Amino acid sequence: MSFDLVLFGGTGDLAWRKLMPALFQSFRHGTLPEGGRIIGVGRDNLSHDQYRELIKSRFDSVEGAKRPNAEEFARFAALLEFQRMDLSMPGDYATLAATLTERNADSVVMYVATAPGLFTTVCEQLAAAGLNTDKTRIVLEKPLGHDLASNRAINETVRRCFKENQVFRIDHYLGKPSVQNLFALRFGNALFEPLWKREHIANIQITIAEDLGVEKRGAFYENTGALRDMVQNHALQLLCAIGMEPPINSHADAIRDEKLKVLRSLKPWTAETLSQHVIRGQYSAGKSGSSKVPGYREELGVSPDSQTETFVALRTEIANWRWAGVPFYIRTGKRLAGRDAHIVVNFHQTPHPIFNAPVGAANRLVINLQPKDGLELHLLAQAQGNRSRSASQSLAPVQLDLDFDKRFGSERVGAYERLLLDVLDGRLNLFVRSDEQEEAWRWVEPIIEHWKNDAAGPRPYVAGTWGPSASSAMIARDGYCWSEES
Amino acid sequence: MSFDLVLFGGTGDLAWRKLMPALFQSFRHGTLPEGGRIIGVGRDNLSHDQYRELIKSRFDSVEGAKRPNAEEFARFAALLEFQRMDLSMPGDYATLAATLTERNADSVVMYVATAPGLFTTVCEQLAAAGLNTDKTRIVLEKPLGHDLASNRAINETVRRCFKENQVFRIDHYLGKPSVQNLFALRFGNALFEPLWKREHIANIQITIAEDLGVEKRGAFYENTGALRDMVQNHALQLLCAIGMEPPINSHADAIRDEKLKVLRSLKPWTAETLSQHVIRGQYSAGKSGSSKVPGYREELGVSPDSQTETFVALRTEIANWRWAGVPFYIRTGKRLAGRDAHIVVNFHQTPHPIFNAPVGAANRLVINLQPKDGLELHLLAQAQGNRSRSASQSLAPVQLDLDFDKRFGSERVGAYERLLLDVLDGRLNLFVRSDEQEEAWRWVEPIIEHWKNDAAGPRPYVAGTWGPSASSAMIARDGYCWSEES
Repeated sequence: MSFDLVLFGGTGDLAWRKLMPALFQSFRHGTLPEGGRIIGVGRDNLSHDQYRELIKSRFDSVEGAKRPNAEEFARFAALLEFQRMDLSMPGDYATLAATLTERNADSVVMYVATAPGLFTTVCEQLAAAGLNTDKTRIVLEKPLGHDLASNRAINETVRRCFKENQVFRIDHYLGKPSVQNLFALRFGNALFEPLWKREHIANIQITIAEDLGVEKRGAFYENTGALRDMVQNHALQLLCAIGMEPPINSHADAIRDEKLKVLRSLKPWTAETLSQHVIRGQYSAGKSGSSKVPGYREELGVSPDSQTETFVALRTEIANWRWAGVPFYIRTGKRLAGRDAHIVVNFHQTPHPIFNAPVGAANRLVINLQPKDGLELHLLAQAQGNRSRSASQSLAPVQLDLDFDKRFGSERVGAYERLLLDVLDGRLNLFVRSDEQEEAWRWVEPIIEHWKNDAAGPRPYVAGTWGPSASSAMIARDGYCWSEES
Repeated sequence: MSFDLVLFGGTGDLAWRKLMPALFQSFRHGTLPEGGRIIGVGRDNLSHDQYRELIKSRFDSVEGAKRPNAEEFARFAALLEFQRMDLSMPGDYATLAATLTERNADSVVMYVATAPGLFTTVCEQLAAAGLNTDKTRIVLEKPLGHDLASNRAINETVRRCFKENQVFRIDHYLGKPSVQNLFALRFGNALFEPLWKREHIANIQITIAEDLGVEKRGAFYENTGALRDMVQNHALQLLCAIGMEPPINSHADAIRDEKLKVLRSLKPWTAETLSQHVIRGQYSAGKSGSSKVPGYREELGVSPDSQTETFVALRTEIANWRWAGVPFYIRTGKRLAGRDAHIVVNFHQTPHPIFNAPVGAANRLVINLQPKDGLELHLLAQAQGNRSRSASQSLAPVQLDLDFDKRFGSERVGAYERLLLDVLDGRLNLFVRSDEQEEAWRWVEPIIEHWKNDAAGPRPYVAGTWGPSASSAMIARDGYCWSEES
């Protein structure tokens, strides 16, 4: 199955950091379909060979096994071409059309990795140039808009130019092995589903913590913030994977229908919940590891009186039969105590304890997403180290562990490699449908509105901590605590 | 709380191999109650010091940390005394009574580690000598009889002489940390109980495999066999721990009431099930590891045409609401492929598979009793090592592990140490009540009867295998297989 992959933003940051390495990995492992051509598109005036040289230099910094040897890269480079385009010029699309028609590959992938402002232009121009045939697939990177209205506007344009099943909206979290594995764990095992409900689960916590600050992306981040950058997309996708009903099959729409149902079941916000159950924070100067780091407002490109949140913690509920009354806590932020993404499923305590258990001890399933990728099942066992008289009546915490890197080898399929392969296969399972995206925006919108009118602004927290104390206070009101505090 | 521990059979095998080391361990760890005295009883004519010397020599062979240093042992030896007794002579019990009355300890433990034939004599003589006061506890080792009638006879005698709550019947399997832990796992965790029923569990397998043969105990084993030696006691106790309902509390009788209910719920045998669901075997010459070993009939003290079984595999059901229709398989034997005791809980397959799972793959909880002591939870995860196109749709087996030695340290409380401490505390949880014991005999009796009239005799199996193939055939008829075959 021959393909043409047209990479808009072919000299840009994403192509450089993620896409080219992913394409090369896949090529090297022989999973990239035969008869492929990768056309980098950019403003510069590069020959094919100059572009190949540019991409080659990308790999010079790579160490170890992932570093291509010359012969290997040469074979890969043979797939690469470059086309200069001004994305606003119809003529340039005509040229592109010619290039593509001449080869007439079985499938044509348009990967739009440009500045978000250009998404709609590219779609419209592609359609105008007749590059929206049935064998075209279009890949869109986030952010698709910065609120419900702008997201709708983009999706409507896209919808005018392409059919929904041609559109691959990337949420790279869905490409993470550990996230896909959530579906396998829940629906490939008979063990969890009977427990996966309000009768057995006390609360669920989703944490996506970064230790980095905004680095050089301050200017971008000023107009984004943690809610748009992480909650509206990644965190809600995780919540959907945890909360959804079993899909009727493993096809894209069966899964996306169930995720959509979860988003529609999220408890609507009220004035009270907006003020009680959403905490925003902004990091002030502190430490990252052992080294001093500046506060957000001192970062490059950030306004000294910025109101942008670098931290969000919130509490919500999925209002359906399965989850009614079970709090779902979401927490994400920059400059937190560590780089740590995980989901904690806290089960109820035993209804009728007959042993002496540690106070508050209960079963817990931890799904680690990063930096480690694995499972922890926290149980209680008999306190067997203990020789005291009452030992046979006492319980101590124990832990069953699974490290996916150890099990499957650390050289696993990266998120972008997986997603690119799925695009080339036309498999939409791991991509976000427009209605999902709009529903997620619909749900975060009231928070954005609330903040606009909330003079208090984000609460400062010291870099290197777990965010403002209000985050712990919120969860404590339910009688629970964040995983690291328990 | 001062105590006198009278050890009948004080120079015997059990005292030598198990009891003295356990008492010393407990003394060394300061868990042996203060003010103790240990009176070894035997036929020989030893002084206290000669007895101390004898016991001291017991530890000469011990290597490493468990070996006592001189000073340590001297302090322990100070607790030891010896009394010469002919257990049939009332006069000798009078002497013992005098020794005990003089000191008048808070509790007096009579540990009957003699030949089984002497159990009733000792009990009657103790009663006759007035040594059955409220502060007396009596410990009885197995075997208490070789069938229902003889077991009843012994228990009736014991009952005439002592109250049930004074009687500590030892099943040393109940002293194993991993077996006690079964109770903790089931009733100290909210996670398992909802799954612990016919709706979710396909079958349960209990294996107690020994690699050793009968060694020097051939003469004893000839009149015992695997059914009496392992099934009637250890295996059924494991089955009770797995199958019982949650007890109302952790007191001895609450737990023993529930175990008794399980034994009473065992499906009664029929002519058909006796011939279809019980397999007996006897090992023939073969290998243990790499070395050649003789067959059972060539062993010392064994008749060349012996019909004694060295292997039993059987299938039963617990006829109640929780377990109706769920097969429980029990398997035990000597000269099997390894020393390996474990319980496997096989869960049903997913009711509605939407992924490609390995054929027959299902969730499984393995409780390892020996040689390793731990838990394995077998799940299915996404086949992540795999780069093939369909990887995101395929499942691969993964395993969560818990090693109790790693978790609690390998120097844990041994079975006999635990049981002795519980006797001294008067805690009956880990001891078998007479009605339990009789119910277990009632259930195995039809098997014994059936074998008497079954000319076929035990099926030969080659030493070092997993027993006669009929054992695999039996379980295969249900569409399952033993854990090592799956």
